[in-house]
Amino acid sequence: MPHAGEARYDVVGIGNALVDVIAHADDHFIEQHGLVKGSMTLVETDRAVDLYRALGSAVEMSGGSAANTMCGVASFGGRAAYLGKVSDDELGDVFGHDLLAVGVTFRPGRPATEVPTGRCIIVVTPDAQRTMNTYLGVSSLLCPPDLDEDTIAGGRVLYMEGYLYDRDDAKAAFRRAAEVAHEAGRQVSLTLSDSFCVDRHRDDFLGLIADEVDLLFGNDDELCSLYRTDSFDEAIAAVRRDCPMAAITVGADGSYVVTSDDVVHVRAEPVARVIDTTGAGDLYAAGFLYGLTHDRPLPECGRLGSVAASEVISHVGPRPLVELRTLAS
Amino acid sequence: MPHAGEARYDVVGIGNALVDVIAHADDHFIEQHGLVKGSMTLVETDRAVDLYRALGSAVEMSGGSAANTMCGVASFGGRAAYLGKVSDDELGDVFGHDLLAVGVTFRPGRPATEVPTGRCIIVVTPDAQRTMNTYLGVSSLLCPPDLDEDTIAGGRVLYMEGYLYDRDDAKAAFRRAAEVAHEAGRQVSLTLSDSFCVDRHRDDFLGLIADEVDLLFGNDDELCSLYRTDSFDEAIAAVRRDCPMAAITVGADGSYVVTSDDVVHVRAEPVARVIDTTGAGDLYAAGFLYGLTHDRPLPECGRLGSVAASEVISHVGPRPLVELRTLAS
Repeated sequence: MPHAGEARYDVVGIGNALVDVIAHADDHFIEQHGLVKGSMTLVETDRAVDLYRALGSAVEMSGGSAANTMCGVASFGGRAAYLGKVSDDELGDVFGHDLLAVGVTFRPGRPATEVPTGRCIIVVTPDAQRTMNTYLGVSSLLCPPDLDEDTIAGGRVLYMEGYLYDRDDAKAAFRRAAEVAHEAGRQVSLTLSDSFCVDRHRDDFLGLIADEVDLLFGNDDELCSLYRTDSFDEAIAAVRRDCPMAAITVGADGSYVVTSDDVVHVRAEPVARVIDTTGAGDLYAAGFLYGLTHDRPLPECGRLGSVAASEVISHVGPRPLVELRTLAS
Repeated sequence: MPHAGEARYDVVGIGNALVDVIAHADDHFIEQHGLVKGSMTLVETDRAVDLYRALGSAVEMSGGSAANTMCGVASFGGRAAYLGKVSDDELGDVFGHDLLAVGVTFRPGRPATEVPTGRCIIVVTPDAQRTMNTYLGVSSLLCPPDLDEDTIAGGRVLYMEGYLYDRDDAKAAFRRAAEVAHEAGRQVSLTLSDSFCVDRHRDDFLGLIADEVDLLFGNDDELCSLYRTDSFDEAIAAVRRDCPMAAITVGADGSYVVTSDDVVHVRAEPVARVIDTTGAGDLYAAGFLYGLTHDRPLPECGRLGSVAASEVISHVGPRPLVELRTLAS
């Protein structure tokens, strides 16, 4: 690995730039519209319009998995940058504003086309679970020429979301981004994002992990899907063979930080009442990455992940409402 | 007054159709940007852009004073319709969706122009006060030909927001709407909206009230501004001369329901913690109008107003998050 120069950013994220459209509905709505609770489904325009029409009053706020993570890193006091595509429309303005507002550097790639900014229709059920229906819009057009390679080379850790893996151009962009990062002596991390997404692209994920990933994020379902097993222990053993480091969340049971040397369990932080689980995994990754890039021991990285996740699930919306640095001590 | 036919709506509202952009900031921000806490200021594009750029992460949700009120009426189980102008853009779609989602009939007037949908940048300070900066956009282009007169004639009570009074075309639309309502044997109500707005247009407000208004809403500041007095008692005495009925809120002290016969004090409902006062007056009017159109005694109308206001100030955002009918008993 080449010698790494001084980093301008702690973490550089790449992902689908989306504005979340969040509404509450009951289990009957989930059933009636054939949704799979807790999952992310890609939808085309017509389906997005139909679902939106059927939903009650909604709130719009910036989202996007890796973008949420970068906002979390910034909220801890870290230096974060984000690469993702928006259009020159109102939701695109909202997305860009909300990154800059928390101090995340935004590199939107080449000028956008007529395709609108992507959005994710999130249905929150009374059990606080979120079910996501994503209209990718312009975000899915990310391809290698959109990458600001200087920014990627200037970040200690590159962070990429698996959701982007649904398009071939984005896969190519991932490969290229990982190369750029490694050539600059940086670490490359990936989050699996969704067990159905893993199922659709298992071989590509396994290849990328073997070739390029230094740190893998995911939850137990995603990891089991990746290794086609029902046994979490088997999946953990497999990831220890494939990847130098992994941080795997297990819901209310916390997380496991996995290296070739060790498997460390980290407890979840207690939450008075879980309101909306949107962003839990994104913010866990934020805390972990902040710790890692500030040379904290791995169990402490996991604890910072738990702290960030506990904040974001205690309110509606995928990004922290308080400065996470104030919770970190 | 002509005999009123059967009504299709309990209340028909006319107002500035706005999407709220809500962000939190401290008193220093208010001072630094020369804002007047608790007031509504009209801003042009440049100022709106500058303020938005300076603000932290924001949440977008449908607002607009009279639109909030109509959503409240619907949330009680009443039949409400709304007239206001949006553009064919993303925020316009959001605004229309959120009315339909709660069962409010939306009459957007003639097709919109190139002017974008209006928005209101709301800064919420730690004391839960909101300071509003409104870029009116297409909403201010409402003029008489936009009025769906059938809808106005079909509502038991017409409800108009004083905010619209900043444009001459809208003043003409108010006059026309009031005529249509009265010709159909309906009641006409008006909310004063903002003490600075009242100050800018005092004579026009007084003229409209004398000629057309059967029921006046406002708070103590607005009423005192209307009658150029520091004495609330004087202002109450004056409104009793000018208007058959008035419902005047006095913050945490509740409200006064004022007729030529009587002045009744109604207590505020207790609130565990006030989070954001945006929409307090709008929802008070909703409860009052629901009660009035369901033949409840006036003190009960005031109580329903208090119930609705207490719900909306206990969370971020200008519209109820629960079905108000469940709180009404």
